[in-house]
Amino acid sequence: MFINKDRLWDTLETHGKIGGTPDGGVCREALTPEDKTGRDLFVTWCREAGLEVAWDEMGTIYATRPGKDNSLLPLAFGSHLDTQPTGGKYDGILGVLGGLEVMRALNDNKAVTDRPLVLIDWTNEEGSRFVPSMMASGIYTGLFKYEDMLKATDANGKVLGDELAASGYKGTEKVGARKFDALLELHIEQGPVLEAKNVEIGIVTGSQGMNWSHVTINGKSSHAGTTPMPYRLDAMGAMARLVQAAHDIANNTPDGCGTVGSITTIPSTYNTIPHTVRFTLDMRHPDEAALQAMLKRFEEAMAAERAKGFTVKREEFGTTPSQAFAPRCVAAVRKATEEAGFSKADIVSGAGHDCVYVNRVCDVGMIFVPCKDGLSHNPKESITKDQAAAGAEVLYRAVMELAKA
Amino acid sequence: MFINKDRLWDTLETHGKIGGTPDGGVCREALTPEDKTGRDLFVTWCREAGLEVAWDEMGTIYATRPGKDNSLLPLAFGSHLDTQPTGGKYDGILGVLGGLEVMRALNDNKAVTDRPLVLIDWTNEEGSRFVPSMMASGIYTGLFKYEDMLKATDANGKVLGDELAASGYKGTEKVGARKFDALLELHIEQGPVLEAKNVEIGIVTGSQGMNWSHVTINGKSSHAGTTPMPYRLDAMGAMARLVQAAHDIANNTPDGCGTVGSITTIPSTYNTIPHTVRFTLDMRHPDEAALQAMLKRFEEAMAAERAKGFTVKREEFGTTPSQAFAPRCVAAVRKATEEAGFSKADIVSGAGHDCVYVNRVCDVGMIFVPCKDGLSHNPKESITKDQAAAGAEVLYRAVMELAKA
Repeated sequence: MFINKDRLWDTLETHGKIGGTPDGGVCREALTPEDKTGRDLFVTWCREAGLEVAWDEMGTIYATRPGKDNSLLPLAFGSHLDTQPTGGKYDGILGVLGGLEVMRALNDNKAVTDRPLVLIDWTNEEGSRFVPSMMASGIYTGLFKYEDMLKATDANGKVLGDELAASGYKGTEKVGARKFDALLELHIEQGPVLEAKNVEIGIVTGSQGMNWSHVTINGKSSHAGTTPMPYRLDAMGAMARLVQAAHDIANNTPDGCGTVGSITTIPSTYNTIPHTVRFTLDMRHPDEAALQAMLKRFEEAMAAERAKGFTVKREEFGTTPSQAFAPRCVAAVRKATEEAGFSKADIVSGAGHDCVYVNRVCDVGMIFVPCKDGLSHNPKESITKDQAAAGAEVLYRAVMELAKA
Repeated sequence: MFINKDRLWDTLETHGKIGGTPDGGVCREALTPEDKTGRDLFVTWCREAGLEVAWDEMGTIYATRPGKDNSLLPLAFGSHLDTQPTGGKYDGILGVLGGLEVMRALNDNKAVTDRPLVLIDWTNEEGSRFVPSMMASGIYTGLFKYEDMLKATDANGKVLGDELAASGYKGTEKVGARKFDALLELHIEQGPVLEAKNVEIGIVTGSQGMNWSHVTINGKSSHAGTTPMPYRLDAMGAMARLVQAAHDIANNTPDGCGTVGSITTIPSTYNTIPHTVRFTLDMRHPDEAALQAMLKRFEEAMAAERAKGFTVKREEFGTTPSQAFAPRCVAAVRKATEEAGFSKADIVSGAGHDCVYVNRVCDVGMIFVPCKDGLSHNPKESITKDQAAAGAEVLYRAVMELAKA
């Protein structure tokens, strides 16, 4: 093994105390004092490892290790150090501190890469304090405007621009000014698949397409006691059939996901038939055509409700097309996993990650390690020392491969 | 016709201006200044009709017309003058002002009844400002304690006891001290049945049994994108199946009603599978055994979800057994309807009414008239002058019948 698994674990445990919660979780939302403390420690460690540290105007931290030829575009790797309010010690953090371990191990091994290497901590990946999530990588990719993001406010009315300046991590380098040859991200899976397959490494081949919408059903409100069943146009019934349709469509589409997470009823009393029911629909599939086919089937289910007299509309509030990661990055992760002797499975990212955004403008690859019970964004989020080490080892080897000129 | 339909209609329209809303509805919640104004006008009219007016310690108004033998228990009739915040001009009001028209018509016709007659306006039937509904008749029946009800507070923290005193309608007569030989209530149907059957009068034979519960489903929360369908225990899916089960059970039980009016999900975001879904279940049937059979079938549907791994519990928060009204009261209403020459249908009350409570301690009967589209508790609540007149005419004739010694 190239990396030092005890050192990596100690680094994760030490850093996890910053914003640590009594239940073993971490609360370190973006640009809070805890986030600043976490960044400060990370910067200290980077400098101790001989890296040159800088940050851009969005506070994203870049820690550079020179290569043989520093005129070559650097190979980047990293993730994020911020957490959800009830987060754990690994989501995002493993990618940053695993990357730090790669840098330290390269030093130990006196390795010299052709390309320079850059370790990244992206600002505000979680988006729990300041919406949207994956904010810095979204700006990097051109999806969000920096000036707009500065105006984002948290639940207490605090403005991102002010909080960024106060943190001391508002630099002058423009977001996106820095280009990379490729970007790798190590992350916990946040799902149950690798654990169920009992493999050590997930080779991420891309990210699935996502489609979010609000479905609104209008029926007829009336009295729960005085309106016989045949006279009803009960929006709750149409909702129940459409939720089942969404689940059935996903169940019958290999690799498809369908989720209804939130429901609103108007009125909302026990003894009145609601005239309006509104729910969220989250549909995902790794293949864009398959995702569109799922949505088409759902629209057919909506049409069946309309035929019963309901008004039904679906309004999309977000779409992310499915993406394939760069074959050379995927191949490098696969080769690294095989050479390190870890068991493996191909997997598609079901969640968004900084890498998924950056994939639009730069070759990317991702490495997943299993997490216990698929839990993340949860104080119970958990991985073993060996799982962390396996991920960092694969990252080390993939970095060595991709850093070649 | 014994009653004066133009006078009745003018009385309804004039009274409907008190608390009248721009959309043609009425907002006259219990013990508001509007309710007081409405009561004052009613009391004035009663005194003009020669009635002796009194009220008890709960503010329920009794307007008495003497009979031949005032030692006989009086025959009572009436309903309530208070409305929902977005109520109409007829729900409850028709029963009180239709009763006033009966008194006036008896005067016009110089009729003398064997028993004394008492016209009643029950306090706070609606329960929209102060919970529970049918408050005064509930105290009369012994279901609620007067002292408890005095402590009820509205959404602004106002206490019922204070508001009652301020209204000037807090009397000294104990609730329930006054006994009746029987009680009749004229009311709009609040449902679509009579309109659909195109009949003028509903002969109410009793009230249906009602069962209210909260159903709570616990599944497993996880990420909407990273959790493949086979790994899910999605509480939303169990909810959809159980809502459908409730509707199916009611649809397949003649005269049964099943309503899910309100749903809560935890968490409630578009991209997380909820671990908990809670909903209200309102089940009704005119026959208690049939109602229990419906609930048993629903419990079977719950058991089927438990077999899939969900935790499901149902907690009742209210039950009202089905009730048959006194045969002599039902017969009097039927005879009155036939002799007046109105088309008719037997019907069971789907909603609660003051009469339904009082039925526990006194013989009662109800007369329904159709309302447009079955709408009530709604500014669009509407009946025609002829429908109002038919109801009052049947009340007049039933009063004449039941007032016999």
